[in-house]
Amino acid sequence: MDETHSQRQERLHSHAILRLEEGGAELRQDLLTVEEPLEVRVRGQAVAVLMRTPCDDFDLVAGFLHTEGMVQRAQDLGALSYCSSAQPPNLENIVEVHLTAGVAFDLEHFRRNLYATSSCGICGKASIEAIRVQAPALGGELRVRREVLFGLDEKLRRAQAVFARTGSLHAAALFDPGGDLLTLREDVGRHNAVDKVVGAYLRAGSGVPAGLLMVSGRASFEIVQKALMAGIAMVVAVSAPSTLAVELARQSGMTLVGFLRGKVANVYTGAERLVP
Amino acid sequence: MDETHSQRQERLHSHAILRLEEGGAELRQDLLTVEEPLEVRVRGQAVAVLMRTPCDDFDLVAGFLHTEGMVQRAQDLGALSYCSSAQPPNLENIVEVHLTAGVAFDLEHFRRNLYATSSCGICGKASIEAIRVQAPALGGELRVRREVLFGLDEKLRRAQAVFARTGSLHAAALFDPGGDLLTLREDVGRHNAVDKVVGAYLRAGSGVPAGLLMVSGRASFEIVQKALMAGIAMVVAVSAPSTLAVELARQSGMTLVGFLRGKVANVYTGAERLVP
Repeated sequence: MDETHSQRQERLHSHAILRLEEGGAELRQDLLTVEEPLEVRVRGQAVAVLMRTPCDDFDLVAGFLHTEGMVQRAQDLGALSYCSSAQPPNLENIVEVHLTAGVAFDLEHFRRNLYATSSCGICGKASIEAIRVQAPALGGELRVRREVLFGLDEKLRRAQAVFARTGSLHAAALFDPGGDLLTLREDVGRHNAVDKVVGAYLRAGSGVPAGLLMVSGRASFEIVQKALMAGIAMVVAVSAPSTLAVELARQSGMTLVGFLRGKVANVYTGAERLVP
Repeated sequence: MDETHSQRQERLHSHAILRLEEGGAELRQDLLTVEEPLEVRVRGQAVAVLMRTPCDDFDLVAGFLHTEGMVQRAQDLGALSYCSSAQPPNLENIVEVHLTAGVAFDLEHFRRNLYATSSCGICGKASIEAIRVQAPALGGELRVRREVLFGLDEKLRRAQAVFARTGSLHAAALFDPGGDLLTLREDVGRHNAVDKVVGAYLRAGSGVPAGLLMVSGRASFEIVQKALMAGIAMVVAVSAPSTLAVELARQSGMTLVGFLRGKVANVYTGAERLVP
């Protein structure tokens, strides 16, 4: 799916810095990760502004609309394009989304906060209920051998050409049940990287294939939420999950693994999918 | 200012996990960072839901309203309390904010996206302009000896009792120009940790004192934006800044340091404040 990458935008930008070391300082060039706002417009209405690394923008937008519950299926999604109607045309940071004719689109429902829907007031339990009502049920068939997990963190790092150069880009990647890399996306925001992976499949007209989603860094509620909305049954993080991430994973029957480093990993929920 | 910490809420939660290692697996107890949604209500209206680690909630809310431009001065802020009017009362995850009588409050202005105000369409330049119009001018007086920077990352880590136990909490800390720690706050979200530091001073009725703000991890646009709104002239990050963070820092005359590790650091902007 990598031919859908936008090659036009640069992810790295060179910048002059002063390097301080004990006893001295010198001028150097440093590579920075690019961060720019992206406005998402659906049927002409602005629905969100995402701070993101400008690459794979259409994947990001498709994935965002899907994992936030606005676009249910690949068939609902029409053409995506950079905005040419703005004055002057904005060909970098506004994406216009067309939905298939007849697909309902309720901006107010979308804007209303997911977490604030419970009459009993806001809490983690209400947040989880709001997600679970919308999310698909996860299948129980996926099985992954435990040893497939070992070393996935290193595979992820090796695949991150950009990461090695700036040390600042988060990654999300889908691996198949045998541990082969299917799709990798990067962004200044980890949640954006997840949306880019999901969006890549949605734009290709397919669901996300069976496998495991790996994220650099931590697993927060938002990461598990997005994976769940995309029907992903196993999430693996390099670092720690939060309580709410674990609780949402547990209640939805998702397998959640954290602190995967070399040949050690912690399984927080759904250990039955990991077989010896 | 540490007496304002809420002691009531727990930041860590014990959870049974399966620990995988090569050749085996064992059951263990693991400590998770707590994550819960917090709804912010101003004069009875819900203005935002923040996913946060439940501690220092009032600092978080005060800092959030300040760094997002809704509350200008400490005097504008009235009483903060957990919501007792919800049915049943929600004493954990809703904070009600009273503003001083006569202080204007424009919810629509607040909700309208900061980044979308430019008629030329959205871009990093417009984002920076929107922030700079609102932000105070930074004073040029602050001077910090370079060697004060060295080892601040280790000081931050040592001060993070919780961090050492879960590996998953971000930290933000204000150090005085001599390198002494003034205030440290933690959260599952780095931007929340910054808001908690700023809010602690706002609630105490003072501005943020001269010094440098240190954050674990990266410096995104949002981190620099929040520091700028709070009048902080120097931001130091353990990892990399993004392009937009550097550009906002440059245009506002802020000193931005990244990759501070032991006795090495990169100065991206405002090197004149760092003296030999």
